[in-house]
Amino acid sequence: MNIQAIMHKPKSNYCYAYTRDNIHIRIRTAKDDVDRVLLVYGDKYEWEKKITTEMYRAFSDDLYDYYTISITATNNRLSYYFLLENRDESHYFTEWGVNDDIPEDELHLVQFHYPYINVADIHEIPDWVRDTVFYQIFPERYDNGNPDISPKNIVPWDSKPERDSFFGGDLQGIINHLDHIKDLGISGIYMTPIFKSTTNHKYDTTDYYTIDPNFGDKDTLKKLVSECHKRGIKVVLDAVYNHCGYKFDKFQDVVEKGKSSKYYNWFYIEEESEGNSEIKYEKFAFEQKMPKLRTSNPEVQKYLLDVASYWIKETDIDGWRLDVSNEVDHMFWKAFRKEIKSIKPDAYIVGENWHDSQPWLQGDQFDGIMNYPVNYSCLKYFAKSSITTETFKRMINESLMRNTWQVNEAMMNLLDSHDTARFVNLSDMDFRKSLLAMSFLLTFVGSTSIYYGTEIGLTGDGDPDCRKGMNWDKSTWNMTVYNMIQSLLQIRNNNKPLTRGSFSWIDCDLLAYKRSLGNEDIYVYINNNDNCKYCTLTNGTYIDLLKNEEIVVSADKNRVEFSEYSVNILKKKN
Amino acid sequence: MNIQAIMHKPKSNYCYAYTRDNIHIRIRTAKDDVDRVLLVYGDKYEWEKKITTEMYRAFSDDLYDYYTISITATNNRLSYYFLLENRDESHYFTEWGVNDDIPEDELHLVQFHYPYINVADIHEIPDWVRDTVFYQIFPERYDNGNPDISPKNIVPWDSKPERDSFFGGDLQGIINHLDHIKDLGISGIYMTPIFKSTTNHKYDTTDYYTIDPNFGDKDTLKKLVSECHKRGIKVVLDAVYNHCGYKFDKFQDVVEKGKSSKYYNWFYIEEESEGNSEIKYEKFAFEQKMPKLRTSNPEVQKYLLDVASYWIKETDIDGWRLDVSNEVDHMFWKAFRKEIKSIKPDAYIVGENWHDSQPWLQGDQFDGIMNYPVNYSCLKYFAKSSITTETFKRMINESLMRNTWQVNEAMMNLLDSHDTARFVNLSDMDFRKSLLAMSFLLTFVGSTSIYYGTEIGLTGDGDPDCRKGMNWDKSTWNMTVYNMIQSLLQIRNNNKPLTRGSFSWIDCDLLAYKRSLGNEDIYVYINNNDNCKYCTLTNGTYIDLLKNEEIVVSADKNRVEFSEYSVNILKKKN
Repeated sequence: MNIQAIMHKPKSNYCYAYTRDNIHIRIRTAKDDVDRVLLVYGDKYEWEKKITTEMYRAFSDDLYDYYTISITATNNRLSYYFLLENRDESHYFTEWGVNDDIPEDELHLVQFHYPYINVADIHEIPDWVRDTVFYQIFPERYDNGNPDISPKNIVPWDSKPERDSFFGGDLQGIINHLDHIKDLGISGIYMTPIFKSTTNHKYDTTDYYTIDPNFGDKDTLKKLVSECHKRGIKVVLDAVYNHCGYKFDKFQDVVEKGKSSKYYNWFYIEEESEGNSEIKYEKFAFEQKMPKLRTSNPEVQKYLLDVASYWIKETDIDGWRLDVSNEVDHMFWKAFRKEIKSIKPDAYIVGENWHDSQPWLQGDQFDGIMNYPVNYSCLKYFAKSSITTETFKRMINESLMRNTWQVNEAMMNLLDSHDTARFVNLSDMDFRKSLLAMSFLLTFVGSTSIYYGTEIGLTGDGDPDCRKGMNWDKSTWNMTVYNMIQSLLQIRNNNKPLTRGSFSWIDCDLLAYKRSLGNEDIYVYINNNDNCKYCTLTNGTYIDLLKNEEIVVSADKNRVEFSEYSVNILKKKN
Repeated sequence: MNIQAIMHKPKSNYCYAYTRDNIHIRIRTAKDDVDRVLLVYGDKYEWEKKITTEMYRAFSDDLYDYYTISITATNNRLSYYFLLENRDESHYFTEWGVNDDIPEDELHLVQFHYPYINVADIHEIPDWVRDTVFYQIFPERYDNGNPDISPKNIVPWDSKPERDSFFGGDLQGIINHLDHIKDLGISGIYMTPIFKSTTNHKYDTTDYYTIDPNFGDKDTLKKLVSECHKRGIKVVLDAVYNHCGYKFDKFQDVVEKGKSSKYYNWFYIEEESEGNSEIKYEKFAFEQKMPKLRTSNPEVQKYLLDVASYWIKETDIDGWRLDVSNEVDHMFWKAFRKEIKSIKPDAYIVGENWHDSQPWLQGDQFDGIMNYPVNYSCLKYFAKSSITTETFKRMINESLMRNTWQVNEAMMNLLDSHDTARFVNLSDMDFRKSLLAMSFLLTFVGSTSIYYGTEIGLTGDGDPDCRKGMNWDKSTWNMTVYNMIQSLLQIRNNNKPLTRGSFSWIDCDLLAYKRSLGNEDIYVYINNNDNCKYCTLTNGTYIDLLKNEEIVVSADKNRVEFSEYSVNILKKKN
């Protein structure tokens, strides 16, 4: 047995409370190394009532097997250990690793413990996020709904975007197209920043309490939120709290008054810059326009939390996406969550972390992150075809097993954003590939965010090219893309197993998995190859949800052909 | 290469800020599997200035090698990956595991990141703890300094303790013996609870604002703390916040009034017990005397935090030991730390967690725990001789590598307590073994707690026998034990490498390690065998700190004999 490969930790992604009555336990072993994993568990004060149960091999890939189980802890207390068996060996696995013997008087010292399930510690995510597909809008480029408030120097709507160009998009432009968004099947929008700033992207906030006058005002935002809510669409705004804009009045005060400014400690000013004509300060990514905020300063913390609360209270928005959230201190985010959830308990808090983000996803900070790790897996598998299906499965398994299941359900999965080239451009402009990737996300665990224009086949290289004006000339839309995305959203919205079901891989010659909830099973077969593939299905009658056809699989006819670059979503008839 | 055994996670015990300028990085590989580990690191916004450096194999055992390094992050930002090499293979190791190639345009997606070192997130421990050896006192059994306030029903001082017997010890009894404590070389005391309660151990608090009248009053405690501080001794009290006593007035209010009590939600009352003659409620370990407190209730939280603050402000105590801390919610402990550190920034917060406790030791809750994991390792190695030196090293390595180095330094290491049999009893009454274990702890990383009476050879089986009256008849003390512990404390107190130095194993036929600080090296050789052993020492002159003798080791005379059950602490002369 490869005992060095075995991994388990209590009170981590390997053992956590999903609900008060539902503890999830996972253990990782080397691939095909263990035949059976038993879990022995009970209340340490009543150990004589212990239970032994077998765990399931839920996720396998080319390196590891992950065994999982969901149990209920008696009296809210849980102590446990594992028994690992294969043909040659059998070992206990405890807090101290592999043991061949556990003396009875040492049991309490070697067991794993989830000492007590306190409800306050359970990570509860907003339930609505499980069912939501977001639509990400870059407001300056969506539509110009009110030319009276457009910047003076706007370029024609179909211009190639330059770093500093203004197109004139605004909030009214979004309101005007909510029916387009709703018709597509969207249930949430996330907008990049809308507060007063000097740039088209507005990540350099000048005034946190004012909607950018080129976008509208507080009333326009209120109207947008209420029109969204009427249609069952949630609204998430972008909180830029790592840094402010150079023209932010508090920073300008420091620029003018130096050390005598009462806002001096709101930023990171370099001492040696005192007395020089130009002040030196810490910035986001060396960007002069973006002085870093000292979020550990209680005054700054209060100011920013007040801002975040204000917009929820005033306009009833449903959550915050947190810009550069990985560079802000954890203490700030802990205070942020407390504040936000006290005002709106089901507000969604989603961080812009591009990487494995366990430290932010323990239940006291974010609900989820923009899921760039899954995005990267899709990039390599669907867009670049640079990894095998087995490697893709390993990357997805790793992503899923890094976090608790509720965090997986609260992830904002995405293929692209205002910060990346559009996925189709990364796929050699092959929409078949980008649609496969979209099909994967929309049948995978977690929420999804679709970047504006994706639904009509909008293309674009990296920033600023990925920020083109939305194309409102329907005659030029790519309707194959539109119809496919609309169908996928319809299927997702109508089939709870796709949003709330379990997820398990199906062993076969293409990318295949099953989503199950209650007695409903949905099978997804994605052929990410340029030739057709065959898979053996279990007998039964299936409905092909995309084609709306019935498929009958019987013992003598169970080998099914899946054509190249195809997606097949099959619902088993009971 | 056993790639499934490789372990690394940013922002965990594998990569953390020790200070703002000091990031510790560790990576675990399978034993003897990798020949060289390189770290490539830099600021992601200035990656062209990246640095490549070789890591050190700092800890090895029979399963794993741990490579470590301490670096400084430029601009407070750190991105990195590893390069692992052995004779046959060479791999990059990134967030996605083993890679043989990192395409340049994917680098930002696969690197590990410590995105930004925010000072607010760095776990700062009270610096004084690094130098402190605690003395744990069970006040009811230390000495009766004021017979006027003793319980009526006390038993003779030398009685065999029963579960419910009272001996009459009190705070004045401790004050009377502070010179004994100081002479031994102690620099801190930790007392089990002293607040009003019905039992001899006082873990069932009746009144959190009153010193138990059998122990003294607030003035006695003030005097005790001030007499300690005069002698350079810190004082840590026991906070019992998981549960209260049955007679606690708020609980009694619920017993009387049921659901109409305003304290009903301070506890976990079972709904179905309403209307019955006897109320049912959650307890600590089924103990009727100990109703569990609902610490997630803001009123309860405020009450208990006020209590904790009150005693610091009123009596200037230096920290709190937290009873049953593993069963209280994390949100409570986060608020607790904020509150306590705002009043006394260098207060010591030490949890009673008997196990691997990473979730509590991230810097937002405890500084350290009562180190039962190291205690267990010592039990198996020194007391029971049931594991090999290699296994002991593995257990110690695991303990050290589970936590950040500052947490290791803030651990309260211990051999026994009021909750265990005395270590010598677990060692077949062989003081040679218990003294070896004590020698290990006092030359190991972290603070140590010595249970009262250990220094004079007091014995005792499990609770209640481990709570005997302290023996004040010096003529019957075990002076071999006393002199050894006093010498060890003197050596520890006079040699900074033993408290603040690095720790590394020495490969040889017995348990041996080196503690280094600056240009001072101290070598410890512990022969935990019943026969003598030989080790080859590097050339030079050493001072044997216990015997106060010089040892000269030269090329033709470098094989040194270490007698059975011996401890040798050798300081190298420069």
